[in-house]
Amino acid sequence: MQLVLQRFFNLEITMKNIEVCYTPDLIHLYDLTSKIVVAVDVLRATSTMVAGLAKGVEKIIPLKNVEETKTYRTKGYILAGERNGKKIEGFDLGNSPFEFMDAALQKPKIAMTTTNGTRTIRSSEKAEKVVIGSFLNLEVVSDFLAKEYTDIVIHCAGWKGRYNLEDSLFAGALIKELFRSSKLFSTNCDSAIAALSLYERYENNLSEIVQKAAHVNRLSGLSAQKDVEFCIQKNVFNNVPLLSKQHIINL
Amino acid sequence: MQLVLQRFFNLEITMKNIEVCYTPDLIHLYDLTSKIVVAVDVLRATSTMVAGLAKGVEKIIPLKNVEETKTYRTKGYILAGERNGKKIEGFDLGNSPFEFMDAALQKPKIAMTTTNGTRTIRSSEKAEKVVIGSFLNLEVVSDFLAKEYTDIVIHCAGWKGRYNLEDSLFAGALIKELFRSSKLFSTNCDSAIAALSLYERYENNLSEIVQKAAHVNRLSGLSAQKDVEFCIQKNVFNNVPLLSKQHIINL
Repeated sequence: MQLVLQRFFNLEITMKNIEVCYTPDLIHLYDLTSKIVVAVDVLRATSTMVAGLAKGVEKIIPLKNVEETKTYRTKGYILAGERNGKKIEGFDLGNSPFEFMDAALQKPKIAMTTTNGTRTIRSSEKAEKVVIGSFLNLEVVSDFLAKEYTDIVIHCAGWKGRYNLEDSLFAGALIKELFRSSKLFSTNCDSAIAALSLYERYENNLSEIVQKAAHVNRLSGLSAQKDVEFCIQKNVFNNVPLLSKQHIINL
Repeated sequence: MQLVLQRFFNLEITMKNIEVCYTPDLIHLYDLTSKIVVAVDVLRATSTMVAGLAKGVEKIIPLKNVEETKTYRTKGYILAGERNGKKIEGFDLGNSPFEFMDAALQKPKIAMTTTNGTRTIRSSEKAEKVVIGSFLNLEVVSDFLAKEYTDIVIHCAGWKGRYNLEDSLFAGALIKELFRSSKLFSTNCDSAIAALSLYERYENNLSEIVQKAAHVNRLSGLSAQKDVEFCIQKNVFNNVPLLSKQHIINL
């Protein structure tokens, strides 16, 4: 239909390019201007944000360091975060989706800092929009992107600057959804092709490949296997969190 | 057998870890001390080096920039290299394996600079040994590594700091060879798991996936399709080039 319109009415159809950046250490190589960034840290920061906001958290401010985060206590925020997978001493919450869903009953404002996820979100700020992605809200994020008219960069949190499997799998899952939803998406990005290939190989057995991920081995030592199983579920929530005035709120 | 020896004679068996670094922009995150780095730029720098050295090139000095490379003319070297896939003006050779194999008849010393490959080799110098890898010498590189007792980092050249498909496919191919050759190899590295998965999906059809690579599209504009087909052939040569006193020479 688009092609017919193009041929007979000389309409210009703009394809929307999808790129994947595997870690915040490479984001300086991507031009984010006029693009939508989907920031993802499957284990666990963005999954936890999506779950908390779906259940009633009012808003979340993502912060890079612990000291800055502490200053938000006097501004009416509760404090959340981890370093190396462990809850920060003196903070109210760690980085588990279950903690955020419990806390959501009081509709809190949360100041949050994590090893990789909050840095990923903050280093995406040059983009036109920053969306918070996870397997938990995969389909609604895809639906949102399909209606927009801009190129997309999926920005994976990785681990301390390095590539990780779980965020790459999410990137592949999102690309597959986008290709299914619209013929206007394409990619010229090798990272995107590789992420899609990885996901297609494991999409019916995400648990198997995620169990091989280095970060799962780090987390299992911290009894967070329950979190891992929760975070790799698809389409549990219907909210699309966006960065707005330095805070993450539902669309 | 190893396990039996371990059980009855209390021998300590050290597993050899394999890591993959997808681009020189991430190599600072890897501890290279006491490790062997396999540097790879399939299209085309390391393939070209392997082919040239197999056919009679005496030695190659990899250099980061054009001006420094030019100073080697008066030291008896011929000059080779490219920027953005094109031969550098005034240089004797570009970055095609066919050019290096032709020049090899005169057994030259070559000073070489390329967009990604020579930078990858130079930024690996902290390692105990630096091996030059390509599909062309895959099996002999694997045999060499199987006999060493150190951990391995496969250092992919990528493209201007970003991930690329062809080097990642080589990493996967080498990991598969290593796992087949010895039970002493293992990996705790997500990049290595993803590279192996990518290769296993496409190993019987490398040409199909490499044709999707962004760099092949850049090169095809430069009529280098013949180079691409040459560089994805496995086990054409039996030389293992190593970095020694800043030069690349055959083992």
